[in-house]
Amino acid sequence: MNEELSVSYITMPQGFKANGVSAGMKCPDPANINNDDPKSSYLDVGMVYSDKLCNVAGVYTSNLVKGHSLVRSMGIIEGTGKAKGIIVNSKVANAGVGAVGIEDADRVAECASSLLGCDKSEILTASTGVIGTRLPLDKITSAIPSLVHGLSVAEECAHNAEYAMMTTDTVPKEVSAQIELTDGKTVTISGMAKGSGMIHPNLATMICIFTTDCGIESASLKKMLQKAVKYTFNRVSVDGDTSVCDMVVVMANGASGVSVTEGTEDYQIVEDALCKLSEDIARMLAADGEGATKFVEIEVHGAKDEKDAKLIVTSVARSPLCKTAFFGEDANIGRILTAVGYSGASFDPEKVDIRLSGLLMYKDGAAVAFDEDEASRLLAEHDIKVDITLYEGDAYDRMFTCDFSYDYVKINGSYRT
Amino acid sequence: MNEELSVSYITMPQGFKANGVSAGMKCPDPANINNDDPKSSYLDVGMVYSDKLCNVAGVYTSNLVKGHSLVRSMGIIEGTGKAKGIIVNSKVANAGVGAVGIEDADRVAECASSLLGCDKSEILTASTGVIGTRLPLDKITSAIPSLVHGLSVAEECAHNAEYAMMTTDTVPKEVSAQIELTDGKTVTISGMAKGSGMIHPNLATMICIFTTDCGIESASLKKMLQKAVKYTFNRVSVDGDTSVCDMVVVMANGASGVSVTEGTEDYQIVEDALCKLSEDIARMLAADGEGATKFVEIEVHGAKDEKDAKLIVTSVARSPLCKTAFFGEDANIGRILTAVGYSGASFDPEKVDIRLSGLLMYKDGAAVAFDEDEASRLLAEHDIKVDITLYEGDAYDRMFTCDFSYDYVKINGSYRT
Repeated sequence: MNEELSVSYITMPQGFKANGVSAGMKCPDPANINNDDPKSSYLDVGMVYSDKLCNVAGVYTSNLVKGHSLVRSMGIIEGTGKAKGIIVNSKVANAGVGAVGIEDADRVAECASSLLGCDKSEILTASTGVIGTRLPLDKITSAIPSLVHGLSVAEECAHNAEYAMMTTDTVPKEVSAQIELTDGKTVTISGMAKGSGMIHPNLATMICIFTTDCGIESASLKKMLQKAVKYTFNRVSVDGDTSVCDMVVVMANGASGVSVTEGTEDYQIVEDALCKLSEDIARMLAADGEGATKFVEIEVHGAKDEKDAKLIVTSVARSPLCKTAFFGEDANIGRILTAVGYSGASFDPEKVDIRLSGLLMYKDGAAVAFDEDEASRLLAEHDIKVDITLYEGDAYDRMFTCDFSYDYVKINGSYRT
Repeated sequence: MNEELSVSYITMPQGFKANGVSAGMKCPDPANINNDDPKSSYLDVGMVYSDKLCNVAGVYTSNLVKGHSLVRSMGIIEGTGKAKGIIVNSKVANAGVGAVGIEDADRVAECASSLLGCDKSEILTASTGVIGTRLPLDKITSAIPSLVHGLSVAEECAHNAEYAMMTTDTVPKEVSAQIELTDGKTVTISGMAKGSGMIHPNLATMICIFTTDCGIESASLKKMLQKAVKYTFNRVSVDGDTSVCDMVVVMANGASGVSVTEGTEDYQIVEDALCKLSEDIARMLAADGEGATKFVEIEVHGAKDEKDAKLIVTSVARSPLCKTAFFGEDANIGRILTAVGYSGASFDPEKVDIRLSGLLMYKDGAAVAFDEDEASRLLAEHDIKVDITLYEGDAYDRMFTCDFSYDYVKINGSYRT
């Protein structure tokens, strides 16, 4: 990736339009909206659309229970692998409502496709929010005409699409990169995502949409996306809860006139860019985890094998005791050691080194004296790093997470009501 | 068990003495102790002792990292299977300090045994508290003479032993039962335990000591204890963190003159009593989990097999989103469904029923309309019950947990400092 752009929005790749409107789900009374309200507090239906049919690929939640809007999209992506657009709504997850859930998602797609003059099977659907409640179809279908008629390449409309899918996110998460290929031609990739609770591999309460004007054949696009998510989206844990609605979708419309083919240097350049943007978004998701005051990156070196490496970073990232200690800026190495110990990984407890933001605090199976002032200073930073070194093999892994704060409890103690 | 006693303390079985004193670890300045302070705020070294040598059995944390006091006790229990006493200290876990940790525990045992005139290998050791800090041997050995000389059958001394091992527990956890055997003779079992964070199977940040004056052969005692912990102590989850210091020990001194032998009706009566007392303590541990405002019991019926049943109750009990919803008294059936979905158990999502405190809220894969007022009333209760019914087989399991509150974050944001 040659240039990561300072301004990022989903319609930067050629041929994509977007929009976001209020269907009155987040804010039932439009009279209550005023100019001071953040757009994420009332926009609740968003769309990304390409007139040119896209090759699409997706990865989906591993939860056995899957949201109905997601199941419908999976059918399309794994079926034809083609789509023109995606409609996302927040507030209601369209999950756990029975057979009617897929019909509801289908109605939403149909309503948009009839206005756009395309087939309803070319419109993907995604929903995020409360589980067990039916989509308010009357509200959504009433809002779709203004959603569709307002579709535009304009930056503001693109941001509105992002705001429309945010739930407890406090900041939008948008990335873009312009990529120069070997012959000097450029393609563009953009991504936008929402978090920010019920996040744990694989995947996360997370919807991420990538657009690119690069032409990529369907099967290759799928492989590229799977590679991109592996150590990025699948290494974010906010609270250990894997949601039912989550997916990452990439839409490639080829509108730049430039295509890449697997096995070429250009393909690798595009793949690297998608991996880098995925990592950027994964970091943003962790940093904006519900109630988060810290971004925490956990790395393990020298694990016996990949499986053990992943067990260890997952165990620490998931531990409420480690996460509350990060919140308290408490250099509690014992909790990290404990989480490593019960991870299920096999290692010699007498040969473990642990560093907190670079400071060696545990070596050869015993705590070492460290400078408490230095530790306090390091833990007061927003970004905290945990390095765990075993001496069992060469395997490495990492995970992005955040701390557990009062606000996590506050946000989640009364989310539904 | 014929009679569960309203007053419970660890020296009710014949031949056991106990005591608890302050070694100045919890409260470094004795001048600061006044009569209003709870004893658990300053007592920090406790002991249970029997002049008659006991058969002892234990179960221990499954954490790969194990505390040094625990490792020393494991050696004795799995070696000779005999002991006269156990010394427990709180505040410092004696874990993660390297080879010196076992020597420190040995010094503590030696100090007590020399005063008691027994062998140091007859004194078990247990420690709970902060990891990575050496035991303050000078403080502990200075306190041991008063600890040993004050050993008594008196109720107050027994309670003091319990207070001495409490950390963030808010209430003592003591149980006793007098058991009438088939010939009319009686034996007594007592137990005392501490919680209350870093608790997750197997085991928990938990130390539990049982005493009984019933004579039971070592191998049988071990089997009986393992049976007793399986669906009790190993079904308590406070925060998903499995500590490094935890054990359940049972000491049987035979001082009643009554013995039971495996395979007899009397043996079964004693085993049933131990199981019941273990369940009582397990419930107390969950209810007094760190920051807990609710006791939550999760049951699954109709799972495919035992493994799946356990995966499901564990997943729900561990979910921060479910636990914050319990705290918020929020009938958020979606989060329970989600946790069941990502548990790793295999089931048909279209055939799941979920009840919250008896109220049917999810049936045949879809949320059902329920009376919100009724739900609010049920969730306002201290005890909450979650029933999950699958239709995959006959397997059943249950788990005891609590909610996640602001106080959990507060307690754990600054435990070490």
